[in-house]
Amino acid sequence: MQWLFLSSLLPFIHSLNEIDEDYRGCANDTEIMDHILHETKLTYNRHRLPSIPVELRIEMWVQEVTSLSELTQDFEIDLYVNEYWTDPGLEYRNLNPCQLNISFDSTMLQDIWTPNTCFINSKKAQIHSSPFTNVFLMVFPNGSIWSNWRIKGTGPCKLDLSKFPMDNVNCSLTLESYNYNRMEVLMVWNDVALIQFKDIELPDFTMYNYSTTSNKQYYAAGYWDELTVTFYFRRRYGWYLLQGFIPTYMTTFISWIPFYLGPRAIPARTMIGVNALLAMTFQFGNIMRNLPRVSYIKAIDVWVLGGIGFVFASLAELAVVGFLMKDEGRPSTLSHSSTRKWNLKKMSSNSRTSNHHCENKLTVVQKSERVDQCARFMFPVIYSLYNFLYWGVYMRSALENAQM
Amino acid sequence: MQWLFLSSLLPFIHSLNEIDEDYRGCANDTEIMDHILHETKLTYNRHRLPSIPVELRIEMWVQEVTSLSELTQDFEIDLYVNEYWTDPGLEYRNLNPCQLNISFDSTMLQDIWTPNTCFINSKKAQIHSSPFTNVFLMVFPNGSIWSNWRIKGTGPCKLDLSKFPMDNVNCSLTLESYNYNRMEVLMVWNDVALIQFKDIELPDFTMYNYSTTSNKQYYAAGYWDELTVTFYFRRRYGWYLLQGFIPTYMTTFISWIPFYLGPRAIPARTMIGVNALLAMTFQFGNIMRNLPRVSYIKAIDVWVLGGIGFVFASLAELAVVGFLMKDEGRPSTLSHSSTRKWNLKKMSSNSRTSNHHCENKLTVVQKSERVDQCARFMFPVIYSLYNFLYWGVYMRSALENAQM
Amino acid sequence: MQWLFLSSLLPFIHSLNEIDEDYRGCANDTEIMDHILHETKLTYNRHRLPSIPVELRIEMWVQEVTSLSELTQDFEIDLYVNEYWTDPGLEYRNLNPCQLNISFDSTMLQDIWTPNTCFINSKKAQIHSSPFTNVFLMVFPNGSIWSNWRIKGTGPCKLDLSKFPMDNVNCSLTLESYNYNRMEVLMVWNDVALIQFKDIELPDFTMYNYSTTSNKQYYAAGYWDELTVTFYFRRRYGWYLLQGFIPTYMTTFISWIPFYLGPRAIPARTMIGVNALLAMTFQFGNIMRNLPRVSYIKAIDVWVLGGIGFVFASLAELAVVGFLMKDEGRPSTLSHSSTRKWNLKKMSSNSRTSNHHCENKLTVVQKSERVDQCARFMFPVIYSLYNFLYWGVYMRSALENAQM
Amino acid sequence: MQWLFLSSLLPFIHSLNEIDEDYRGCANDTEIMDHILHETKLTYNRHRLPSIPVELRIEMWVQEVTSLSELTQDFEIDLYVNEYWTDPGLEYRNLNPCQLNISFDSTMLQDIWTPNTCFINSKKAQIHSSPFTNVFLMVFPNGSIWSNWRIKGTGPCKLDLSKFPMDNVNCSLTLESYNYNRMEVLMVWNDVALIQFKDIELPDFTMYNYSTTSNKQYYAAGYWDELTVTFYFRRRYGWYLLQGFIPTYMTTFISWIPFYLGPRAIPARTMIGVNALLAMTFQFGNIMRNLPRVSYIKAIDVWVLGGIGFVFASLAELAVVGFLMKDEGRPSTLSHSSTRKWNLKKMSSNSRTSNHHCENKLTVVQKSERVDQCARFMFPVIYSLYNFLYWGVYMRSALENAQM
Amino acid sequence: MQWLFLSSLLPFIHSLNEIDEDYRGCANDTEIMDHILHETKLTYNRHRLPSIPVELRIEMWVQEVTSLSELTQDFEIDLYVNEYWTDPGLEYRNLNPCQLNISFDSTMLQDIWTPNTCFINSKKAQIHSSPFTNVFLMVFPNGSIWSNWRIKGTGPCKLDLSKFPMDNVNCSLTLESYNYNRMEVLMVWNDVALIQFKDIELPDFTMYNYSTTSNKQYYAAGYWDELTVTFYFRRRYGWYLLQGFIPTYMTTFISWIPFYLGPRAIPARTMIGVNALLAMTFQFGNIMRNLPRVSYIKAIDVWVLGGIGFVFASLAELAVVGFLMKDEGRPSTLSHSSTRKWNLKKMSSNSRTSNHHCENKLTVVQKSERVDQCARFMFPVIYSLYNFLYWGVYMRSALENAQM
Repeated sequence: MQWLFLSSLLPFIHSLNEIDEDYRGCANDTEIMDHILHETKLTYNRHRLPSIPVELRIEMWVQEVTSLSELTQDFEIDLYVNEYWTDPGLEYRNLNPCQLNISFDSTMLQDIWTPNTCFINSKKAQIHSSPFTNVFLMVFPNGSIWSNWRIKGTGPCKLDLSKFPMDNVNCSLTLESYNYNRMEVLMVWNDVALIQFKDIELPDFTMYNYSTTSNKQYYAAGYWDELTVTFYFRRRYGWYLLQGFIPTYMTTFISWIPFYLGPRAIPARTMIGVNALLAMTFQFGNIMRNLPRVSYIKAIDVWVLGGIGFVFASLAELAVVGFLMKDEGRPSTLSHSSTRKWNLKKMSSNSRTSNHHCENKLTVVQKSERVDQCARFMFPVIYSLYNFLYWGVYMRSALENAQM
Repeated sequence: MQWLFLSSLLPFIHSLNEIDEDYRGCANDTEIMDHILHETKLTYNRHRLPSIPVELRIEMWVQEVTSLSELTQDFEIDLYVNEYWTDPGLEYRNLNPCQLNISFDSTMLQDIWTPNTCFINSKKAQIHSSPFTNVFLMVFPNGSIWSNWRIKGTGPCKLDLSKFPMDNVNCSLTLESYNYNRMEVLMVWNDVALIQFKDIELPDFTMYNYSTTSNKQYYAAGYWDELTVTFYFRRRYGWYLLQGFIPTYMTTFISWIPFYLGPRAIPARTMIGVNALLAMTFQFGNIMRNLPRVSYIKAIDVWVLGGIGFVFASLAELAVVGFLMKDEGRPSTLSHSSTRKWNLKKMSSNSRTSNHHCENKLTVVQKSERVDQCARFMFPVIYSLYNFLYWGVYMRSALENAQM
Repeated sequence: MQWLFLSSLLPFIHSLNEIDEDYRGCANDTEIMDHILHETKLTYNRHRLPSIPVELRIEMWVQEVTSLSELTQDFEIDLYVNEYWTDPGLEYRNLNPCQLNISFDSTMLQDIWTPNTCFINSKKAQIHSSPFTNVFLMVFPNGSIWSNWRIKGTGPCKLDLSKFPMDNVNCSLTLESYNYNRMEVLMVWNDVALIQFKDIELPDFTMYNYSTTSNKQYYAAGYWDELTVTFYFRRRYGWYLLQGFIPTYMTTFISWIPFYLGPRAIPARTMIGVNALLAMTFQFGNIMRNLPRVSYIKAIDVWVLGGIGFVFASLAELAVVGFLMKDEGRPSTLSHSSTRKWNLKKMSSNSRTSNHHCENKLTVVQKSERVDQCARFMFPVIYSLYNFLYWGVYMRSALENAQM
Repeated sequence: MQWLFLSSLLPFIHSLNEIDEDYRGCANDTEIMDHILHETKLTYNRHRLPSIPVELRIEMWVQEVTSLSELTQDFEIDLYVNEYWTDPGLEYRNLNPCQLNISFDSTMLQDIWTPNTCFINSKKAQIHSSPFTNVFLMVFPNGSIWSNWRIKGTGPCKLDLSKFPMDNVNCSLTLESYNYNRMEVLMVWNDVALIQFKDIELPDFTMYNYSTTSNKQYYAAGYWDELTVTFYFRRRYGWYLLQGFIPTYMTTFISWIPFYLGPRAIPARTMIGVNALLAMTFQFGNIMRNLPRVSYIKAIDVWVLGGIGFVFASLAELAVVGFLMKDEGRPSTLSHSSTRKWNLKKMSSNSRTSNHHCENKLTVVQKSERVDQCARFMFPVIYSLYNFLYWGVYMRSALENAQM
Repeated sequence: MQWLFLSSLLPFIHSLNEIDEDYRGCANDTEIMDHILHETKLTYNRHRLPSIPVELRIEMWVQEVTSLSELTQDFEIDLYVNEYWTDPGLEYRNLNPCQLNISFDSTMLQDIWTPNTCFINSKKAQIHSSPFTNVFLMVFPNGSIWSNWRIKGTGPCKLDLSKFPMDNVNCSLTLESYNYNRMEVLMVWNDVALIQFKDIELPDFTMYNYSTTSNKQYYAAGYWDELTVTFYFRRRYGWYLLQGFIPTYMTTFISWIPFYLGPRAIPARTMIGVNALLAMTFQFGNIMRNLPRVSYIKAIDVWVLGGIGFVFASLAELAVVGFLMKDEGRPSTLSHSSTRKWNLKKMSSNSRTSNHHCENKLTVVQKSERVDQCARFMFPVIYSLYNFLYWGVYMRSALENAQM
């Protein structure tokens, strides 16, 4: 028996149709259909295998990927599944047909043997009905059958969020004949296993590759052929940069403003520090809301915790300055009255003590200032280092993914 | 064979009915139905094409668009699909019928050949059942068949959010005969391809146009006729002005209040600046929540990032003023005690040093004041320029859309 | 033929049943059913119209309105639809029946002619199945048929939110025979067209009225009878007063507290003003979340924007006071040291300069105070006026609605 | 005819079965089934009433209540409905059966007369299919039939939230024969009308009671028997105490901290007051989100509005203190320079004026202090009174409910 | 009759198949199928029990657990259910079959007797249709039948959140023959009752064990066999540590910063305290949102209430410091003018009074300082103790769970 490669040979068959159409003296559709629908029915048993084993060729056409959800860890795809097998019981070659194929709709599927091909790892899969069932069935004179159905399928995705949002996701669907093991039905991918109608682009994912594999799965009742198609998606992290990284950068920069306000502006500095921290946790919560509650550390966790750490450090710097300055007020008041007292008392004496005291007092403010100056310099430097490190580690892996 | 143009000729047919009603000696419905339902059934095969090719005319009536979702990128429409073809096998002209047409309900659809017209890009499409199936089938004496079904369909939309919320959206539905290629079924739009029952107005969209196109689609089994109807929607951005732009304007204006509070009101100024920034990011988040996570920059992103930039700039101005004023407090206290000391010490000496010092001190405050004065002038000016630029760019494209 | 008015005559029929039950010599149910189910079937054709035209009487019983959603602009209703027509083919008067009616369940509906009455503007409508199909079918001796089905229907609502939350909503459902025009099926409302089982009260809506209308709708295949029932709902705005208006009142009142804190409490006043504004926008966002994104101005928008305007005005007043007071600090410090210097220098001189300066300084504070005093008076007055105006305009329309 | 009381007599029947199993010479299942399925079918008409009237006994077994939603005002229940009636047409006593009952599955239900018992107030009700239809049908030799089906039903609840969260909810389901009035089918509750498989505990509700009632409902076609089961739920308000009351207590207590900070800490006091108010409204909004938008005042509304009132009062107290202290700053500065001037001018004079002035000034602060002292005492006292009153009123009703 | 143990013996059977395939002279599939489908049908009654009792063996294969929801208290599982029983009516041993088994698809299930095994505690359960029904049916020569169906089931979970997020959850599904009691169908677990295809890992749960039990359940119609499979899940609390515990730690630490800012920085300290409290309640609310409203105290409640308590305590400490410092301002101003007056007046007198006064004043500040110093030490100490206690209690139980 000679196999037809669906996407390669069928156009050819079709062209044959056109040629043969003006051919006369052949059996027309009516006769053939009568043959198939009525005569055949007497001897045809839809439970009986057409041959042992039945060779079943599969080809998929991907129409659209409509969603990919991190929370439920699945994706939704619209695809056409093409099955190709030969059922000698439906052969009508001997009738000298005018047409090289006859089309049927979905009702025919209940009357003939089908391999019962199912997506065995799907969460949901149903043939589109828009509004009539999207099943196409073509019978060729030699009994070859081409079955095509458009389905909406929901399949599982494997997420590794440890590099989120620079991560990749791969999602797969596995076809199996639910009823027949590989002694009965031998499933193979067609030479052209999968055709994409267009580039698959989701708002936050790009499908950059796919693969088709087949392996034998052992069950209690024998070995089953498993055809798996895997889709590889890369996250488009533009949105996350805009909504996740830019705000945290901004918040971090704002948390450095206090270093320039001087050690006396404690209320203003506190306000900035506290609000920066609040904003940071708020932004964190917003991004986390759409992610599953995985137990490992994600790249975005590292980033936000790092950002929170820097804001917290600036708040700690505030605490240090505040602690140093705490005594500035009191001695000032103290010195205020005491030095004046002193001054007035020892009006003609030398001002050494007073000077000395002032120096002491200055030292307190100067110490604070020095802490601020140090922070003004150190925070950007360390933050830059942190950034180099962070982006170095995670972007490299993102780039590696991009090269795949 | 003479084609009937549904929406133009059918009323005429109907008027014929009225005239012919008092015509006697004709076969009544019962006889015709018996003929169609019983006699025909013996020879009729619903899998057989009535003619090769079958000419199929399509006309759509749009009842309502019930939703258009940016997040799932689809729209939901209630529409009537009218199909018109001729099936010689159902001809009853020869019976001399009294009525020029006979109506059937949905059960009849299972018994006759149908073109199996499907929306092949729909996410979901089902014939309304409210509570009985919304299928109307009319058979004319010459075997012409008019099939009408009301469906609720969900189809894909193409969103380009780069001009959001001044953007347009177009949504389309594509009809195809699922089982028959154009050698078998030739699909054409009716002369009046689409009728709108009323203006389509969604809360945030207006349908301003539609188009119907037909093209040939190549599949493995030949060329298929594809009839596509595209609906063009324009966003009604009133809500976004009210909820998105007015609050950001207000927040920006508030961020300018600090310039008038003087350089000493650092806590109050900080509070205003920090809160304006928080409000801005909060407003940003609220608008973003209902949009898909696209990776490109939207008009609203430009706007909000611009707004955040201006608030951030006002906060930076605060930092500058704060930095200048930082030393005001200290010298003041210093001068406070030192100048007094000085004064008391050099009670009779000239006040030049003191004056000089004051001038210095004044300079610090005056510098800050000058920064504030400059900001008071520059911020509104630059913001106005930014506004002219922004609205110029985006409104022009919105106006262009409006003229379409 | 004499029409039965369902809700008026049927009890009477029922009482007849009771009387006739002890009547002997009549055909019992078994015989009649055999007649209807078996004998009739041979000649009965369920596609054939029982008469031309068929007079169809409709009566509705409203059980419950379960929801009314502004976002999707629809309502959900549980109702019983009663249809009443006469089918001579099912007449069994001649059998001398014992009972004046026979009941059937939903399976019978597939075997007899039905008018195929559908809700043609429904989003969804299905016969309740709880757990058995809620269809009641009664055949009377003269062939009259009473069909009753309980459905859950979702129909469109017309919202005009411009007076929200003092607005009214009207929702409608339209019945049409999907298959037969008014030449074939003549639909009329029963004398008692609609019965409410109880007052319809939703948490935030009250149904205060309903209307039933009928009109002819022109389609390509003739005129169709359309029976429309419209339900009028009035919003119960108690919740919106509590959650929307009271908080904004409170926030507005709080924004007046700063006027009493004196011109020097700039930080405290800023905090109150800024927080009042934040609270206002937050409250605004909360109310808006459940409303569709309409492009026009709603009553609540006017209210909240008004409230935001008043808070903003109080913030502007703060800016004015802050601007006036800005110079108070500096001259004060200046005067502090300079006047003291002056005092010490010119210890015995007259205090005119000093006094003059003080007067000047006082003027600054007094000016601010006067601004505050003015605000303390003007804000409540203008706000009251605004309130009178607002409530006058919108409550009048609410009252007008209430009188309807 | 002798009635079987399902839950009481059936075990007995079952024990009979065991005894009779070794009884020989009896008709086995095959014969009986052949009789029921084949012979009976010739004469049996599933539309015919088995007797006039049919006595129908109902018994319910409650398996689980899976949810109770305030927003949609309904509850979801898994229950078994048992129906018991006698159909002489299925009697097989005369066959001398070996077994005292025969079981059938759901397919049998389409072949025999059923009372068509429906939940007529359900929003949704469907027989469980897990994965096979959960219908149990047992036929006894005397033609008695026991039908049992497990359904998931959604029924309406009557909520009176005026005592929320100390409120009770009662939910009901009403059974009616959809097709037969009480002349035809007489529905009664079984002696043991309802059996609970276990205590019904939802996370926030406890079912504390149930009741079964039956009444006659008048429709156009006669009187119908209505069997209603009502479930009484009591809210478990632990969660609301934790999430609603404790936070508002805490917020109220925090709003009292300002009274201890002295009249000069206006910024700190403002911050606390304003933030307490914000927190209060935020907490209010959180609790409200899950409740329907009822127009009346709920117990929680009273509580939160009370809480907001107290916080607002503390803010008003702040305004009073702020107003009193407003002039403290100015006279202080005034006195500062003027008294000094005075002092320096009248260096040797008595300090009476100065003292007098100080007293005046002290009075301002003292006044404020006295206001604070008063508040420190009055707020807790009034709040305690408010609490006694509040809990007294609402807990009493809660306790009353508990005793029911 | 000799039982086949599905997972152990079936491979063996399968290997037999391979050996026998080249065996000639045997009845081929066609003959056997004709026998089963046609001849058998004449005598076979699908309502009749194949034997009394039927022994039914159950084996489950767990494919995947797709979700486990705390809110709805259920889990969703994809599993294969294998049933194994013998039906002598389908025996074809005597035909000398070539193959040792014959496969059928789901349509066969309607034609033979099935035990009607149902999940009686499931919320939902349906056989996968992806897109063809996932039913596998194999008939062996001796009439043994192996039925396998893949279902998506939703079953109840028992949650005890009192140790949340260190809690365990167990979820169960119970199989019962809906129609037959244990006199008729005897259900037993297969020797290998359950096979896991892979480790079950949800984002926040790990399945660490399962158990299969069987017990007799008494109903009105006899004893039923109940086979229950229970899955034990352990929560993976990594996410909760990151999102729940780390933020509260941070907030608590921040609430200690005020102790270092000195008693005069009241506004800054207030801001930190108030914001820490706001952040704490906000974090609390975020975690609570995804949990059912249980009425008992959860481990996370204890933790957050503890955290709120500590922050509240730090705010109380602020109130104490504020109260102590309240009088510092006034005497200071008082002393300011009075002491100067004094100084100038008694320029040459001793400074005892002044000193005394200063000491008094110092005492106020020192007292506050001492309170702060005490807090600086006590808060971390008590917090550490609280942590030891908390983690000791709850981690021990978590560890105990881990050892299970």
